[in-house]
Amino acid sequence: MIMHPNLPVTRAGTDGDIAIVTIDRPAVRNALDLSMWEGLQTTMEALSAEEATRCVVLRGAGAEAFSAGADINAFEAERGSAETEAVYARVFHTSMQSIRRCRHPVVAEIRGFCLGGGAGLATMCDFRVGGEGMRMGITAMKLSLWYPYAEIDPIIQLAGTGVATEMLIEGRIFNGREAYEKGLLSRVVPDDDVPAEAMALARRVADGGPLAARFHKAAIQKLRGALPITAAEDLAVSDFVQTEDFQAAFRAFRARAQPVWRAR
Amino acid sequence: MIMHPNLPVTRAGTDGDIAIVTIDRPAVRNALDLSMWEGLQTTMEALSAEEATRCVVLRGAGAEAFSAGADINAFEAERGSAETEAVYARVFHTSMQSIRRCRHPVVAEIRGFCLGGGAGLATMCDFRVGGEGMRMGITAMKLSLWYPYAEIDPIIQLAGTGVATEMLIEGRIFNGREAYEKGLLSRVVPDDDVPAEAMALARRVADGGPLAARFHKAAIQKLRGALPITAAEDLAVSDFVQTEDFQAAFRAFRARAQPVWRAR
Amino acid sequence: MIMHPNLPVTRAGTDGDIAIVTIDRPAVRNALDLSMWEGLQTTMEALSAEEATRCVVLRGAGAEAFSAGADINAFEAERGSAETEAVYARVFHTSMQSIRRCRHPVVAEIRGFCLGGGAGLATMCDFRVGGEGMRMGITAMKLSLWYPYAEIDPIIQLAGTGVATEMLIEGRIFNGREAYEKGLLSRVVPDDDVPAEAMALARRVADGGPLAARFHKAAIQKLRGALPITAAEDLAVSDFVQTEDFQAAFRAFRARAQPVWRAR
Repeated sequence: MIMHPNLPVTRAGTDGDIAIVTIDRPAVRNALDLSMWEGLQTTMEALSAEEATRCVVLRGAGAEAFSAGADINAFEAERGSAETEAVYARVFHTSMQSIRRCRHPVVAEIRGFCLGGGAGLATMCDFRVGGEGMRMGITAMKLSLWYPYAEIDPIIQLAGTGVATEMLIEGRIFNGREAYEKGLLSRVVPDDDVPAEAMALARRVADGGPLAARFHKAAIQKLRGALPITAAEDLAVSDFVQTEDFQAAFRAFRARAQPVWRAR
Repeated sequence: MIMHPNLPVTRAGTDGDIAIVTIDRPAVRNALDLSMWEGLQTTMEALSAEEATRCVVLRGAGAEAFSAGADINAFEAERGSAETEAVYARVFHTSMQSIRRCRHPVVAEIRGFCLGGGAGLATMCDFRVGGEGMRMGITAMKLSLWYPYAEIDPIIQLAGTGVATEMLIEGRIFNGREAYEKGLLSRVVPDDDVPAEAMALARRVADGGPLAARFHKAAIQKLRGALPITAAEDLAVSDFVQTEDFQAAFRAFRARAQPVWRAR
Repeated sequence: MIMHPNLPVTRAGTDGDIAIVTIDRPAVRNALDLSMWEGLQTTMEALSAEEATRCVVLRGAGAEAFSAGADINAFEAERGSAETEAVYARVFHTSMQSIRRCRHPVVAEIRGFCLGGGAGLATMCDFRVGGEGMRMGITAMKLSLWYPYAEIDPIIQLAGTGVATEMLIEGRIFNGREAYEKGLLSRVVPDDDVPAEAMALARRVADGGPLAARFHKAAIQKLRGALPITAAEDLAVSDFVQTEDFQAAFRAFRARAQPVWRAR
């Protein structure tokens, strides 16, 4: 199995039947650049194909962050033009979907920051164990970025349209207790207990019948039906890069200034 | 901008980028008659077209009520026959949908009574800030009225089918804490803090990129897809006026008596 | 009305307008065998046709259990082969759906164990009043059984995909408070108060307009639309009986041993 250096895979449980994927870039709060999104996809696909694996745990290195999402330092090099954004959107989407397509259930073990694409990763997982002190939110609206349909939908399916609205339009950051009350977490525990509870959950999943787990994971997704979004609508999500507002916000971000919105 | 006298619009925020619409008939707990439903639609459409507006707050005059819904004193003049009900249903629906179609996010600021069409208005908004002492419910079933599909659906999308069932079939009235636990409120605060929290929320929305807000508002609605309801089914919602039960309930209501249900 | 001996029907309320169906096999925690699933369907269809009935309460005999679900003692005789499972799946489905198709609202009165098909019954009801000490869960995965689409869907519609995942893939058992927080209960009260609160709820439902109750019950279901599941996919749910894992789990269950999963 080829592993990305910032996405090490370790094993736990009976005969190693639980795979642990660690997002390991603590210097930038476990943010992911393009190569890591691609690496995550490769890793999830490899784990999905494994016959002896029964459950996957996705976690961040250290206690400070699950993941801060897209690596903002790599933003200028990797995003911001129509061409780069088209590539980024495709890689981001394929990486996110690789968690849902993984045959084995995936548990997010969440402490600290769980922001932007990090919150996105968490909502693609089958389970989310969070700490009381975690901070979960998507602040794409601060840069006038548009969050894509296929990644908004799981938030709605988990927690309803009101919660998706708070996250995407207010840019609300929830603590662990709020995230639990809103339906975004399977459970909330004291921060120090998160790894043990995530592992206990993974153990219970791994002890169940694997074919039943696969059937139920697929069934819950299948009951959603196809998203009522056309291919053209999907592609148009990247149109934000061509707006004056995004370009201004991008410049303001680099200058550490507030953007002035023109709504065009 | 032509304003209905009972629906004054004021401005707040940076350069007045937050519009505040007040349902202003405190003598009847801010209930709306037909002209006010029409006026609300006109107002929301005018605000939606404004280029400088970034967020709308919908509130009731005073602390006693957000809105008690349809004006029961106007009921006899405006509703109760097949002809008047067809008109009323169309106006009610168009008014409700004008909140969802508004380009700008809409925040409901809720204190006190939030009943019937008032609860309907709240659930059409993008955000709901409620006070602990609020009273939220839909009691159409007490008059054997049928609540329409397009206005039931947002309740389900916010809070699930169980909550919609409690509201519509039990006629349950929730206080602020319960409404929050059920997913009907974005947040609940002490009653006196509701206006400030609604304004703070509106400020955060208005500070984000407006094109992102518009995209995300439309995307969350678009992901629902078209309702699986035919035009004939939609029209048939008004058939309740032709039932013996509704006519009896209507007479009983005027006589302040209990109706005897015949289920026909 | 022909009643199954383990499903007695009694009456309460004004002129007996509330029907009470009791699952009455306390020796096996009110588990249902095939004849009881058939009996429940017959009973629900008969009650649905009644003109004077306004609400149905479904409860378990005694305080120890609502229902432990499928009778595991009858499992060997009634299930486990492709032939018997095809019959069982059809009867189970028709029985479950008879609650949803019942014209009158149905209230689940839940104390104690509410497991497997018992939890299924509860989630098919329109309302769920639960006690703090109740235990609600579906542990099909322990036997590598697959839970069917049409009975998963109401869990998702009530409580979202995250809760359905916890129930089906982790086999999580919720107490009353957790079940309420997750959206699985309409309300939670001390165990001793469950019967009185269920009856009070039924009384409020029965006091409303019956045509409105029927319209709203049908409308909430209709807004779901048809499930995006083909007939072939539906039939394939019973394929689990042909897997090695299920056969091994079935043998292990009889021997009170742990199964060894092969994922085939």
